[in-house]
Amino acid sequence: MIDALLEGNRRALARALTWVENDDDRAQALLNEIYPHTGRAWVIGVTGAPGTGKSSLVNVIAHSFRRREETVGIIAVDPTSPFTGGAILGDRIRMREHAGDAGVFIRSMATRGSLGGLSKATRDGIRVLDAAGFDWIIVETVGAGQSEVDIVRTAQTTVVVEAPGLGDDVQAIKAGIMEIADILVVNKADRSGADQTARTLKAMLELGHPASRTEMIQHHGQILPVEREPEADRPLWIPPVVRTIATDESGVVELIDAIDRHRRYIHTHELGRQLERQRLSIELVERLRETVVARVVQTVPDHHIMRIVDQLLARELAPQQAVDALLTLHDDQKGQLGRPADTQHRETLG
Amino acid sequence: MIDALLEGNRRALARALTWVENDDDRAQALLNEIYPHTGRAWVIGVTGAPGTGKSSLVNVIAHSFRRREETVGIIAVDPTSPFTGGAILGDRIRMREHAGDAGVFIRSMATRGSLGGLSKATRDGIRVLDAAGFDWIIVETVGAGQSEVDIVRTAQTTVVVEAPGLGDDVQAIKAGIMEIADILVVNKADRSGADQTARTLKAMLELGHPASRTEMIQHHGQILPVEREPEADRPLWIPPVVRTIATDESGVVELIDAIDRHRRYIHTHELGRQLERQRLSIELVERLRETVVARVVQTVPDHHIMRIVDQLLARELAPQQAVDALLTLHDDQKGQLGRPADTQHRETLG
Repeated sequence: MIDALLEGNRRALARALTWVENDDDRAQALLNEIYPHTGRAWVIGVTGAPGTGKSSLVNVIAHSFRRREETVGIIAVDPTSPFTGGAILGDRIRMREHAGDAGVFIRSMATRGSLGGLSKATRDGIRVLDAAGFDWIIVETVGAGQSEVDIVRTAQTTVVVEAPGLGDDVQAIKAGIMEIADILVVNKADRSGADQTARTLKAMLELGHPASRTEMIQHHGQILPVEREPEADRPLWIPPVVRTIATDESGVVELIDAIDRHRRYIHTHELGRQLERQRLSIELVERLRETVVARVVQTVPDHHIMRIVDQLLARELAPQQAVDALLTLHDDQKGQLGRPADTQHRETLG
Repeated sequence: MIDALLEGNRRALARALTWVENDDDRAQALLNEIYPHTGRAWVIGVTGAPGTGKSSLVNVIAHSFRRREETVGIIAVDPTSPFTGGAILGDRIRMREHAGDAGVFIRSMATRGSLGGLSKATRDGIRVLDAAGFDWIIVETVGAGQSEVDIVRTAQTTVVVEAPGLGDDVQAIKAGIMEIADILVVNKADRSGADQTARTLKAMLELGHPASRTEMIQHHGQILPVEREPEADRPLWIPPVVRTIATDESGVVELIDAIDRHRRYIHTHELGRQLERQRLSIELVERLRETVVARVVQTVPDHHIMRIVDQLLARELAPQQAVDALLTLHDDQKGQLGRPADTQHRETLG
């Protein structure tokens, strides 16, 4: 399975992604094995409000890379619809666009309801595509608050897509996602209002938006000690505003050029390692969070947990007091965080 | 301070909310103290895409409750703008609408960048307003993915606001937030397209949307054992679709009536306790997550954490292996989760 995946076998790829998405037991072993084979691909995040034409744009970007004989893996993330399925049909329809081309792979991912599950699945999905040898990985997501911040954490280049005529305002500004853009796109640039939208975006950029991506990522990684690089003496990256019409591919050459330039900028100023360190620190905290909660809950017997919830309900314990009570119970059970509870259990039993 | 807060003193209220928002050390002690005085208020979540007129609608709802001599606390949550300030100005402008009325209190809240920080601050902010004696608490948030799911977890009645003319589609459906609505509002109902929007929403409801709120909350609480109630023999709550024009208050009587009916529905079928148990279970997991990560990071010396991140970067450790290494280090330091690291430190030192 792992060899097949590393050779880019599509069935192995599809299976691995399903394991990752379902948080299957086999996913973790696989991810540990393939991790040394990752880090080659360049990850592009594409985000924007509904109606901006993101998906068409992503298809067109993929076509452009294919013309250069570079391969493209696409993960379409749908964070807004945690409770419905149906993504598979969408994948099939989109794959028809790239029918018969082994150099493109598209996969949708939806949450299965667990908090933080989607960003974990996305990150792991990227690693699977990366290990399978794709040159570019595009993560496409609906433009909505927290999900963009998640993209910032995964992508090396973030493209924020805007379109004229989606209401009175520029959606990216309303949604506060200007700040995460490395590249801004005004798609559907043949519509009236495109000039106005581009002007507004440029004006916002001149007002000092966006805050430096680097700082933002540090901000999120603050719980772990992060080595801060000395203030670098490098030119600022100013997000270009690119106009495109995805339907006839206008402006796509400029967009690909902007992506290439941004990638070179990161390389030239040796930001890649620093940014990756920050991304990995954030991921470490997120995984720590999930792992530790699972182990505490496994260690403390159910009836104790139930009683604590009852005390919360009766207002005998405040929420933070309840957490402390739960952790004291965990310590009393001699819970060891470094080993899964079932191992401990076996030892206790015998 | 606590007495002043419980008496509804506005300066104490403002200070307490600032502590909560900044995650000030004093916030936790305060929250533990006031917790027994909470649980009286009814919490309404109001959400919808930008441009639907949520804020005006919330103001009008507040006025209606005031006419019944009931008091209203409002928390305006902005999850999409974690890196900018400026909310205070907005509060002042909105407060002018309710000038001189001690029965209304408005507060904006923005994240300070910490993951999960906003939902924690919102929940705690609700408790502060609740303890201060407000009859109704309205939590207003921009309609965007994860933030709605957070509202579902805090509010007892969730109102999803839609408006015609925001594009070709119904935003609530696109954003996948139909499913969290207890009440659907078509605001700006004098605009063309309002009939169409209302019809579409009703059609969606008939298609079986939304999934039962109760089930959804259980879904999120799955990591903790939740006592499942036997399948109750109660009528389904079918979200009404209410048309409003916030600017001239049309339809607001119907909206308030729908809110009152939903509240009675929860009471009549004794769902309140069950839903609160689920909300508290979810909160317990979220707090556990934050607390435990903070304690592990405090226990394990910085240079060990740095080395693990280096090994991640060098791809000598995969992410999950890095988490396990960190937890083993925590166990080796005899880290006790039930007590904050600084206490442990003092003990170790002597």
